[in-house]
Amino acid sequence: MLAVHLENGQVTLRDIAKPVRPPGHALIRTLVAGICNTDLELQRGYYGFIGTPGHEFVGEVVEADNSDLIGKRVAGEINLACGECVNCRRVLGRHCSSRTVLGIVNHPGAFQEFFTLPERNLHLIPDGVSNDSAVFLEPLAAACEILDQVHFPAGEQVAVLGDGKLGLLISQTLHAYGVNVLQYGRHRDKLLIAEQAGVPTAAANAPVPDASFDFVVDATGSSEGLRQAVRMVKPRGTIILKSTVHGEVAIDTAPVIVNEITLIGSRCGRFEPALELLTLNTVRVDALIADRFPLASAPEAFARAAEKGVLKVLLQAPA
Amino acid sequence: MLAVHLENGQVTLRDIAKPVRPPGHALIRTLVAGICNTDLELQRGYYGFIGTPGHEFVGEVVEADNSDLIGKRVAGEINLACGECVNCRRVLGRHCSSRTVLGIVNHPGAFQEFFTLPERNLHLIPDGVSNDSAVFLEPLAAACEILDQVHFPAGEQVAVLGDGKLGLLISQTLHAYGVNVLQYGRHRDKLLIAEQAGVPTAAANAPVPDASFDFVVDATGSSEGLRQAVRMVKPRGTIILKSTVHGEVAIDTAPVIVNEITLIGSRCGRFEPALELLTLNTVRVDALIADRFPLASAPEAFARAAEKGVLKVLLQAPA
Repeated sequence: MLAVHLENGQVTLRDIAKPVRPPGHALIRTLVAGICNTDLELQRGYYGFIGTPGHEFVGEVVEADNSDLIGKRVAGEINLACGECVNCRRVLGRHCSSRTVLGIVNHPGAFQEFFTLPERNLHLIPDGVSNDSAVFLEPLAAACEILDQVHFPAGEQVAVLGDGKLGLLISQTLHAYGVNVLQYGRHRDKLLIAEQAGVPTAAANAPVPDASFDFVVDATGSSEGLRQAVRMVKPRGTIILKSTVHGEVAIDTAPVIVNEITLIGSRCGRFEPALELLTLNTVRVDALIADRFPLASAPEAFARAAEKGVLKVLLQAPA
Repeated sequence: MLAVHLENGQVTLRDIAKPVRPPGHALIRTLVAGICNTDLELQRGYYGFIGTPGHEFVGEVVEADNSDLIGKRVAGEINLACGECVNCRRVLGRHCSSRTVLGIVNHPGAFQEFFTLPERNLHLIPDGVSNDSAVFLEPLAAACEILDQVHFPAGEQVAVLGDGKLGLLISQTLHAYGVNVLQYGRHRDKLLIAEQAGVPTAAANAPVPDASFDFVVDATGSSEGLRQAVRMVKPRGTIILKSTVHGEVAIDTAPVIVNEITLIGSRCGRFEPALELLTLNTVRVDALIADRFPLASAPEAFARAAEKGVLKVLLQAPA
């Protein structure tokens, strides 16, 4: 079968054996998969990654212990937890200390024709949710994670910095949950996607107001974004860190301490609220799709996804 | 009158006019003042400071609108708030956007024979609390601030990193409030002060446990301290930032985000709980006094305070 392979910055295609399903795992045929910024970082060597990436997917179960799953469309939580450690017992399998992570850490990902994932990680996709929508479940769950970590007081205006894929999912998600969002971005065409979903926007390249928000979400993906967030947040305010910027980031901790700012790291989230948003069609993910390629054109797809300003690039497996 | 003057890294003494008390301010005669790390940073040019430092003090009121204050021993909150801005209305005068700060920002400090402070900033010192204890009110209030910001679940073990002045006040304060503290430090003699107050300690130069605490307080005053805190805290855990490290600190935000760590900046606190700790004698501040000098020997006192490993150096005004 066809599998994408990352090594030394190169995206190649390999013909490898179909994986064997361990007990408790489903064998899944990839239908559609999304290229995430993390995949581009893996290509650049983050985590010393060598192998098959891909953690945003919708697939069809072809083999499973639970026969009810067979033939069903699924998406899946990407953290493969041991189920027994202290974090797993706290229902925080996403933080399991011995976890592997689909397409990221020691578990081959979805950018291949078939892959495996524990059955307990899977979520059935309702008929009304298309493949193109379902492939956004994982990043949408990451956006929903903010609402599991932070309570926004009613009416409070929350600034979201960054109009990339994750920023647009975050602003729409918070808006869908009734949060009063103001999205800052540098790209008029991207902010338009938020506006069409009812989210007010502002230009981030204009002077931005200092010390004006109790809550700022940094989804810029840049170290400058964090510095801007520190300037924009009020004393005693909260910044939610959604940008994984690899390598060391130089930040001045003095204003964080003097202004008693809280910084909250935020990563993967539960799939349930994200699935509800897609089922109710309250978040517009279709507008985020920039391009699509067959799996066999993965090198071109990665190149396209790496172009400046390009939103989501999808990979489509052979029918 | 005698006043300490900082400029271009030099500590000098000047003979200047006694300050004139503005309405609402008390004129205070300095009794004892403490040299804080911030004063040493001001000497090095932090905030572009030129003038008279000193924000840890106990003094005697010699003039005031409120005649009940006259002759009384007082300590005082160091932030001079406008009383009218949005932060002041939130009872957060410590974050007033137009504040001046005693001996730090645009308000001459306590390292002189007389200085002024708004009467509403003052706290009366009970008879049972000595000058040597009362001078610790301000840093002790900063230690108490943690308890206003963070709720520690009953029995939860909290790591305090750093055995300097602030670290020792923090560990004793948390311990006094019933928190299960484990203090990490590099100096056996300093850890002994914590141990004599009943706080368990551990060597920070030995290998420290990874991902082992839900709460870590960084009071090391070093950028390495923050990195160590990030390693020691569990996923979803909280780090309280008590170290003002000036200049940019390079931190790797990736583990903060991946492990969904919360970082909370923490600065000045309310004086009331600190005064209670001193009144009840539940925190040992006497053991923190390393040396004392007359105000006229301020240059020597600053030099002594800057020596590696020296705890609190006090300045004593002429009788």
